[in-house]
Amino acid sequence: MPNGAQILISSLVDGGVSTCFANPGTSEMHFVAALDEVPGLRPVLCLFEGVATGAADGYARMTGKPACTLLHLGPGLAGGLPNLHNARRAASPVVNVVGDHALRHKRLDAPLESDIGALAATVSSWTRRTYHPDELAGDVREAVAAAAGPPGAIATLVVPADVSWSRADAPVTAPPPPAARRGLVSVDAVTGAADALRSGERAALLLGGDAVRGAALTAAGRVAAATGARLLCETFPARQERGAGRPAAERLAYLPSGATGQLAGVRHLVLAGATSPVSFFAYPGQGGGLVPKGCAVHTLTAGAEDVTAALEGLAEVVGSGAWAVRQAAARPALPAGDLTAESAAAVIGALLPEAAVVVDEANTSGIWLPGATAGAPAHDWLTLTGGAMGQGLPLAVGAAVAAPGRPVLALVGDGASMYTPQALWTQAREGLDVTTVVFDNRSYAILALELQAVGAVSAGPGAGRLLDLSGPPLDFVSLARGMGVPAARATTAEEFAALLKRGLTEPGPLLIACRVPPLGR
Amino acid sequence: MPNGAQILISSLVDGGVSTCFANPGTSEMHFVAALDEVPGLRPVLCLFEGVATGAADGYARMTGKPACTLLHLGPGLAGGLPNLHNARRAASPVVNVVGDHALRHKRLDAPLESDIGALAATVSSWTRRTYHPDELAGDVREAVAAAAGPPGAIATLVVPADVSWSRADAPVTAPPPPAARRGLVSVDAVTGAADALRSGERAALLLGGDAVRGAALTAAGRVAAATGARLLCETFPARQERGAGRPAAERLAYLPSGATGQLAGVRHLVLAGATSPVSFFAYPGQGGGLVPKGCAVHTLTAGAEDVTAALEGLAEVVGSGAWAVRQAAARPALPAGDLTAESAAAVIGALLPEAAVVVDEANTSGIWLPGATAGAPAHDWLTLTGGAMGQGLPLAVGAAVAAPGRPVLALVGDGASMYTPQALWTQAREGLDVTTVVFDNRSYAILALELQAVGAVSAGPGAGRLLDLSGPPLDFVSLARGMGVPAARATTAEEFAALLKRGLTEPGPLLIACRVPPLGR
Repeated sequence: MPNGAQILISSLVDGGVSTCFANPGTSEMHFVAALDEVPGLRPVLCLFEGVATGAADGYARMTGKPACTLLHLGPGLAGGLPNLHNARRAASPVVNVVGDHALRHKRLDAPLESDIGALAATVSSWTRRTYHPDELAGDVREAVAAAAGPPGAIATLVVPADVSWSRADAPVTAPPPPAARRGLVSVDAVTGAADALRSGERAALLLGGDAVRGAALTAAGRVAAATGARLLCETFPARQERGAGRPAAERLAYLPSGATGQLAGVRHLVLAGATSPVSFFAYPGQGGGLVPKGCAVHTLTAGAEDVTAALEGLAEVVGSGAWAVRQAAARPALPAGDLTAESAAAVIGALLPEAAVVVDEANTSGIWLPGATAGAPAHDWLTLTGGAMGQGLPLAVGAAVAAPGRPVLALVGDGASMYTPQALWTQAREGLDVTTVVFDNRSYAILALELQAVGAVSAGPGAGRLLDLSGPPLDFVSLARGMGVPAARATTAEEFAALLKRGLTEPGPLLIACRVPPLGR
Repeated sequence: MPNGAQILISSLVDGGVSTCFANPGTSEMHFVAALDEVPGLRPVLCLFEGVATGAADGYARMTGKPACTLLHLGPGLAGGLPNLHNARRAASPVVNVVGDHALRHKRLDAPLESDIGALAATVSSWTRRTYHPDELAGDVREAVAAAAGPPGAIATLVVPADVSWSRADAPVTAPPPPAARRGLVSVDAVTGAADALRSGERAALLLGGDAVRGAALTAAGRVAAATGARLLCETFPARQERGAGRPAAERLAYLPSGATGQLAGVRHLVLAGATSPVSFFAYPGQGGGLVPKGCAVHTLTAGAEDVTAALEGLAEVVGSGAWAVRQAAARPALPAGDLTAESAAAVIGALLPEAAVVVDEANTSGIWLPGATAGAPAHDWLTLTGGAMGQGLPLAVGAAVAAPGRPVLALVGDGASMYTPQALWTQAREGLDVTTVVFDNRSYAILALELQAVGAVSAGPGAGRLLDLSGPPLDFVSLARGMGVPAARATTAEEFAALLKRGLTEPGPLLIACRVPPLGR
């Protein structure tokens, strides 16, 4: 009979899981050993748990399928929680495999003992501890099904070391879980949305979740063509398909002042895969909701409902033909001279290749990117869904593993990059085609903005020093080379363009450090 | 009236908290601004939450007082949890200040919303959310008291953004919390331990917690001198005072085979600040307890009891004089030639200065360190109390901030260093006197040992690849320089000695990358 670790891996493979982002420890050693005995699961070593979980998120966003993580007891899971928070907000399917002490070791309160279940519950829709190897096949099937959704979710399976090393009593069999209910649509919601869009009053569709991709996005474009409704997209989509030839959905702005402007005058807001928009943070004297007064909100889909079917149904009901509004091809000219966040965005817009995967954690320096890339060849855009810093570099690792034929472009702020820089090593290790652009403005520029936005203006040096990354300056070229990633610095738009061309054409990773002034300076 | 953030800081300062290890976000901007308006709290910026929490642990271990952390909502706290786990195991007093959404923003389920209370509870002995600025002074006093103990603990205060930015209604007053009960000793336990130690049978004192320092350690040395009892120390002490002139307590070995050997033949084991020893991990076919058959365990102190008073009482009862067993001064000769973990340990033993603070996260390469440094001038040794990787570099930051006159030596494995490398930037930022030695063996060597120990021997390439850090090799010199820390590589014992002398004498940080073979090769 196989041991638990072997059953675990074969069950994951049976369930369609083919990639494991791993940061193992002692309690996972039988899993590690079993990788050589059970084929089908590709291990990708990550030097920090947050890289493993962020990579699993990126993989899920590109494939719609779960990868698994391999994490070491409670502290290992804890290190991975920030990016699991982001994955939860992205509705990404992820299966966490968390090793634990052998069952009889639990009560001894050994140093690594902690409440894994409590940690897991903060991000997981499904958590289970397996107590015997015979239970593993069934537990893995349930975990994979829970992760797959719809909607995609985090499933966490806690596997005690002795369950991994013990042999099964019985042959490994587990009935398949009941098929997920798909294609659910509320007919009332479809007709209600259709009535609203045909009311003659100003209307918008707010797309989120799966609605910013594929057939759902095309259907939304047909609805827009037939009704004149404006297409908007939630502020932080998991993966937005955009660019020339695709229906263009403008992302709601991050700051409430911007989003309020976008929604001004809208009388009907139809939510398709999105929730009613709220501001990212609260600000003194402002409400958190962004829906304008007098605007009716119509929920086309909620929860596990099928946004693609609903939007296609809506397109039929509003009498649209096959024609959808589509973005025209357009690129900015390659700029010359000073390198700024704005000129860098133009360089990216000018050079972004067809089918690129853009990972965006450039929280202030990225402000010109949506405009500069709107008409670039069709590409995917992955964003910071949950607001937990350090998502960009790991997400790029997972996206590149999931989509080996596609160029991956990670655009990250200097501050954000330093939460999970270890991802660069995995890029080098796996020879991933990731071009990383670090916008090096030597500050937590987003916080300088927010300091003003919340009215906490301080003229003193203490506050400024907590937002300042200039002393000492981070040398990202040196950092990247330290992890085996080739790197270079750009100080002009021309240098950046030359380096970006190189990164997008040469195989393997490249990091480009773009020295730019902070926003507003 | 002051706003909540100002009350928060002034209350922390009133409570004796003078240092804040911070990784702030938007919800903490009023706190950041208030640093310029309320004097007394030194902010230390950390680029990742795990650095902030590990630094707070190091600070607490050196001073016995809490520093505070400043963290950003649930994901920020989550990033800090692994090192809070270690701090909890060290009984280090830490006050976490976690910013949160404004109260009326909570129900909107904005992207950063998560269950902060559940996360906090996994490491904290005290958790509170403040709902009004008037409550802050009292809540901070309780938090500081809960952290201070005894025993030291983690206290987590969740501060909504609107509580920070709103003004108090009433003048800030809060009654002081009741004084902690100190000096608690069980007379029965003292006499029971004395009887055991005088039984004529082989006996050992297992020291842990506060018992490995100061007056408690001296008293333990007196007990040993009077009774012949052997002095042992828990495997991972928070801060062990050791070296020439101090009672020498041998640390229990990490692997059960080693610890079992140390305890063989012991008929009475007296626990002073320690719990009954168990193995770090379980292994197939072995029990987790390490106490030999036929050995009686005597608990001198438990929980909040005063181990110093108990050991001093015990010394009186067993009739010891002032004389205590003390370690003789002795240093290894400076070695020449090949640089190995063993020769590196000799270099360290030969050069370790008086009053050094050694932070040890060299989990395999450090195996010769205790022996090589046993007779070095008196120094402190800080270890990986909770087994959560990435403790060493942040701990060194906190220790250096807490003890500015003392040389800090961080000894870390290459694998361990990559969980929290961002700590190097804070070393440079603050000009801390930390010499970091990275034992670069290009592997997760501890796991290669554990793979054998758990019987999960695999001959295949998959397992080996998950324990291998050689492709690409990490260039720690480049990494350190990227974060503003001078660095150099040592490939011989002589080079290492020269660099270590430089690090220990020049002000500011230095990183030394020691290229060593993995243990057993």
